[in-house]
Amino acid sequence: QVRGAPAIALLGCLSLAVELAGGAGPSEDLGALEEFVGQRLGFLLTARPTAANLGREAERLRAVVSGSPGVGLGLGWGGHTPVFPLPSIIEYIEGLLEKDRRDNRNIGAHGASHILGRVPGGGPVTLLTHCNTGTLATAGYGTALGVVRALHQRGSLSRVFCTETRPYNQGSRLSALELRHDGVPVTLIADSAAAAAMRERGVQAVVVGADRVAANGDTANKIGTFQLAVVARHMGIPFYVAAPSTTCDPTLASGHLIPIEERPGTELTHLGGVLLADPEVDVWNPAFDVTPHELITGGIITEWGVFAPSELCQAL
Amino acid sequence: QVRGAPAIALLGCLSLAVELAGGAGPSEDLGALEEFVGQRLGFLLTARPTAANLGREAERLRAVVSGSPGVGLGLGWGGHTPVFPLPSIIEYIEGLLEKDRRDNRNIGAHGASHILGRVPGGGPVTLLTHCNTGTLATAGYGTALGVVRALHQRGSLSRVFCTETRPYNQGSRLSALELRHDGVPVTLIADSAAAAAMRERGVQAVVVGADRVAANGDTANKIGTFQLAVVARHMGIPFYVAAPSTTCDPTLASGHLIPIEERPGTELTHLGGVLLADPEVDVWNPAFDVTPHELITGGIITEWGVFAPSELCQAL
Repeated sequence: QVRGAPAIALLGCLSLAVELAGGAGPSEDLGALEEFVGQRLGFLLTARPTAANLGREAERLRAVVSGSPGVGLGLGWGGHTPVFPLPSIIEYIEGLLEKDRRDNRNIGAHGASHILGRVPGGGPVTLLTHCNTGTLATAGYGTALGVVRALHQRGSLSRVFCTETRPYNQGSRLSALELRHDGVPVTLIADSAAAAAMRERGVQAVVVGADRVAANGDTANKIGTFQLAVVARHMGIPFYVAAPSTTCDPTLASGHLIPIEERPGTELTHLGGVLLADPEVDVWNPAFDVTPHELITGGIITEWGVFAPSELCQAL
Repeated sequence: QVRGAPAIALLGCLSLAVELAGGAGPSEDLGALEEFVGQRLGFLLTARPTAANLGREAERLRAVVSGSPGVGLGLGWGGHTPVFPLPSIIEYIEGLLEKDRRDNRNIGAHGASHILGRVPGGGPVTLLTHCNTGTLATAGYGTALGVVRALHQRGSLSRVFCTETRPYNQGSRLSALELRHDGVPVTLIADSAAAAAMRERGVQAVVVGADRVAANGDTANKIGTFQLAVVARHMGIPFYVAAPSTTCDPTLASGHLIPIEERPGTELTHLGGVLLADPEVDVWNPAFDVTPHELITGGIITEWGVFAPSELCQAL
């Protein structure tokens, strides 16, 4: 019932906080608490193998539970020490929500400035985005859509093209809806119309989100991201990934190692009550693909600034 | 109720034959008959501005009605002279149906041989196709799907990936259905999964149809074709267009001049009874795009052989 890598990580942690606050976990034995938290996080991790954020948060949270020093720096707790009793852990988790909103605003600001710095005359600009990375995928504001919102708030956005994002239609169901709700000039297109939109409708930059960034900058994101990046490079249009720094996974040397979730074929053969295809047909339905770092020509936009893909993980 | 450029041309002409056979047209005055045929064909042409075939057939048919010598050579009528009375015109039109089937078989044979000649070891090959160019778009057998069928009949097809082809789903509704019906190994993918399929699933050639080919080889086809061609070139995979020679329009110097039909936004916001998006959202829904000739790296497969895109119109 929740989607978007940052939102999944947040909700996973928040649901754990609710469990802990409700007395579901052990209240005194630190070892037992570590085990309880580890089990709960392990279960959540199996649900979304491609996204990195939950894994990163789970690791930090385990360290918080263990009272490990040096963890959580820069997370905005002020002077709290992340050890027992439970209230500290719950407070830490609640802080993640505020941190995600603040990170998104910073992503938006950095991305907007970087894009406007590259555009002749300083804008306004026409963008293209894929999938949904907005208020419905994060704690609010959004990553790629945070960049879109920041440009709109500065009066520097001509229009954003949203791809439908088959087979789950996050672009038509979510992005187009939330942008229109906020008064952002948005046009919905079929995934197949992206190249035509870049060529015929003056798209000046492509901005997408990410589920996991490997150490070399290769990026897993919603299926279709890879071909958008190929087309953008062919057209000489800068291609940006916008994601919080927790999306980086320095343990994976390259994108080949990122696990890609494959989803049921029924997402392509059925829609609501409508049968779209022979229900017996063979379907290949990978939910994500990997964009090689050299195609991320604009850079990776994080809460700390815009990085060259191959330099991001070292910089963090 | 009919789709696919060749099928539209055929059905347009056949419907005229039915009208003429039923006595709808003038039966003796050649000038009046020319005007009647011209009016009917003009109406049909307005329905599909992008496809070339109907325009070409309409032009030939007008010439046949006028008894113009030199027209209809190679169309397989034997010794008939294409002038009044009506039966000759009707017979000419009926001949188009048989000609389309024969042309498709030749397209299939030429395309299969060309592709196998390029593959290390001579096959079997894995293909990717877009939209529907099969028995449901032609008089039978198909153009791009004719190539797929010919390879399958030779035992040289490993698998064909069919894109869903949003927003009208010709790939899932038609191509996947007709290929599975014929026992061809077929896998359905989202349009966005094409690049991932090329990279991860060993696609060795992309074959699509065409609605109109300009004099320089630029080709209009179903929206999404352009980006498939960009991605195929990025991967070093040959990209083929398969189409009868009537798809060529030597009157247009380049693809920029091909009119592109834009269709209602409801194709993206509604599906059957299901609402897919905010019904008020702005939608851009071009039905076709133009692939520049330099991206058609495999060649254009016609009933007369495989041509370099820039040489096709001169060769015909």
